[in-house]
Amino acid sequence: MGCSGRFLGPSQIIPPQAIQWSSSNMKIVRIHHTTVPIRSFIRNAYIDFSQMQCSVVALVTDRVCDGKPVVGYGFNSNGRYHAHGLLSERFIPRLMRADSADLVDETGDTLDPAKVWRVLMTGEKPGGHGERSVAVGVLDMAVWDVVAKAAGVPLWSLLADRFNHGVADGRVWVYAAGGYYAPDKGIDALKDEMRGYLDLGYRTVKLKIGGAPLAQDLARIEAVIEVVGAGDRVAVDANGRFDRKTALAYAEALQPYGLCWYEEPGDPLDFQLQAEVAKHYDAPLATGENLFSMQDACNLVRYGGLRPDRDWLQFDCALSYGLVEYLRTLRMLAEHGWSQRRVVPHGGHQMSLNMAAGLGLGGNESYPGVFQPFGGFADDRPVQDGLVALPHIPGIGFEAKRDLYSVLKDLVA
Amino acid sequence: MGCSGRFLGPSQIIPPQAIQWSSSNMKIVRIHHTTVPIRSFIRNAYIDFSQMQCSVVALVTDRVCDGKPVVGYGFNSNGRYHAHGLLSERFIPRLMRADSADLVDETGDTLDPAKVWRVLMTGEKPGGHGERSVAVGVLDMAVWDVVAKAAGVPLWSLLADRFNHGVADGRVWVYAAGGYYAPDKGIDALKDEMRGYLDLGYRTVKLKIGGAPLAQDLARIEAVIEVVGAGDRVAVDANGRFDRKTALAYAEALQPYGLCWYEEPGDPLDFQLQAEVAKHYDAPLATGENLFSMQDACNLVRYGGLRPDRDWLQFDCALSYGLVEYLRTLRMLAEHGWSQRRVVPHGGHQMSLNMAAGLGLGGNESYPGVFQPFGGFADDRPVQDGLVALPHIPGIGFEAKRDLYSVLKDLVA
Repeated sequence: MGCSGRFLGPSQIIPPQAIQWSSSNMKIVRIHHTTVPIRSFIRNAYIDFSQMQCSVVALVTDRVCDGKPVVGYGFNSNGRYHAHGLLSERFIPRLMRADSADLVDETGDTLDPAKVWRVLMTGEKPGGHGERSVAVGVLDMAVWDVVAKAAGVPLWSLLADRFNHGVADGRVWVYAAGGYYAPDKGIDALKDEMRGYLDLGYRTVKLKIGGAPLAQDLARIEAVIEVVGAGDRVAVDANGRFDRKTALAYAEALQPYGLCWYEEPGDPLDFQLQAEVAKHYDAPLATGENLFSMQDACNLVRYGGLRPDRDWLQFDCALSYGLVEYLRTLRMLAEHGWSQRRVVPHGGHQMSLNMAAGLGLGGNESYPGVFQPFGGFADDRPVQDGLVALPHIPGIGFEAKRDLYSVLKDLVA
Repeated sequence: MGCSGRFLGPSQIIPPQAIQWSSSNMKIVRIHHTTVPIRSFIRNAYIDFSQMQCSVVALVTDRVCDGKPVVGYGFNSNGRYHAHGLLSERFIPRLMRADSADLVDETGDTLDPAKVWRVLMTGEKPGGHGERSVAVGVLDMAVWDVVAKAAGVPLWSLLADRFNHGVADGRVWVYAAGGYYAPDKGIDALKDEMRGYLDLGYRTVKLKIGGAPLAQDLARIEAVIEVVGAGDRVAVDANGRFDRKTALAYAEALQPYGLCWYEEPGDPLDFQLQAEVAKHYDAPLATGENLFSMQDACNLVRYGGLRPDRDWLQFDCALSYGLVEYLRTLRMLAEHGWSQRRVVPHGGHQMSLNMAAGLGLGGNESYPGVFQPFGGFADDRPVQDGLVALPHIPGIGFEAKRDLYSVLKDLVA
């Protein structure tokens, strides 16, 4: 294994590279981190995104590839706050104190994400899955970026090899998540927005509901269906704001549209409400972006009444202890009879896109134009027919997204 | 309402006080906060407590009582980490930015804890209940301390008046939580420790299990029963470490002892495991210290198989969004047929003791000698026959615990 000489299939061209080998274990030399604004001018039922910020880390190793140190980058997803305090006070010091032998794989030449995860979670009690799950998710992303870069392969390819019998999806289904409420945003503006997504290559779109009375939301949905052309290419998202009665009233009203999905009707931890909606609503449901551990996801599957033949699960690794925990969640799902194709992660970032391609998930969220520069994919990989391809460069692919990489590399400079 | 002139019943003597009235709303002038070590030399299955620290806040108002500003104090409970970053980056700035009209009750003369809570939780999405629940719990404690001090009454009395038809318990059942593992701590040392608790006035004790093989744990339990005199005065705590098989093996082995309770056999969010243990174990079970919201507590009650006639619920307000959320949890419990007498909070601090007395809970945890100075109760209220009384001074009563108050008042000095 190394960052050169690996066969990646005919379409995968990686520039020649040369890693400097060492007889000692890979070491984390330092971890830079900072907090930067997420550029958005939107709000949903709970959040004014203009107040959101994003934690960004750069994990610098002692390995050199093509004359430059191997550096892994990570950041948190939108919807939850940055993790600055937890990173600086608890998780980065814990990682930097660790012996390198407790962080590397059996060769010593690269990090072992599961071992890093165990170190990060040392001294952490079970339960209470929030906030720290973001801090660990950010660092875990950087670790996987290092591991793929040190192997000289794109992360999606590494994941396919390790966990999916070498099979990766060449392109991933993505949908455009938008349709936020805004002052003075009428039906026409909503339709223009959706037309814009179609012009960008998306086939499926999502809009927010629950921020307006039911009748007004139905008019918005009908307008969007008119633009997109079919109900099953329109998803709606209540962001967990409905009580039981409202959730069921919406379920009844939405049923005739045959929507792509009806997302997060009630509190994400109110599994009984979720199960009641599932009993009354035949079309697909979706939820999971606000469950931050395998155990919480397991409770959703056990008690939420979701149907493996049609519903969607939207856990976001960057908010929920990273990919190491996500692999546990996928194993748990398999044990409960769920295909990983029913998983479409929240967040619209490249980490989830790599997971979708390399682990064979059902697709990935996308937020055209918002949550920048963290949202979105490689610059030279436009969405076509609702699908997006991934770059063939080592790591997660941040270097192929210019505006994001300029933020990331500043961290190390 | 004010800090003088309130009738508190014959046994309640409060020194005369004079509040300076104002025609404007009470204002929070500033919030001091810091992080201090918790003095402990113990560890359980997950945590090395020597690494734990505690967030402490002092909420200074513009009201003056007996010539001094009315100041409320709060801190987090043991078992979870301090909340320094979240307090300084998110929650204290949010509270300080708020208009005083959004924080005070209808008179304007004092804070309304529920309104403060709403301000604190503005911009917070549902789900993900950990870490931030500690930050909010710390501030909520300080708010209740202010409210009781401004009213000139002990918090337990204020809670009884507001939420329990004026009925408060004069004394609260407490148990001594100890029996931690330590290197070279044999059966004799364990027995000595337990004898010490009896000497301090406790009747019921708790010891850790799961840190040694089953046979060794049973020998430890038998030794403690021998000291205490009866199985139903000995509780055991696995701190969530067991898998299904081990939890059930312990259940079978513990059954004959008729213990006070068997606490947290498995992961606190694994409600199915909890329900299985309940099916196989007739004696009382206890859990809840690692559930940090009403919704998580609700899921435990819905799915955990616990029995309202014998089991115990141990939610800790200082870790779980404070008393405002706790009142929601108690309402939820009542709707599910649970008496508040089945609630015995985790943490061993004065806030929970006030809640136990004023809301008529079943009792309170106590950690003699550890988690100092935050654990423990008023200096002049020794435990007698397993019961402890509360001081008759305004607020939570921190001023009646000298070592604690010396830390708290330094924050304002």
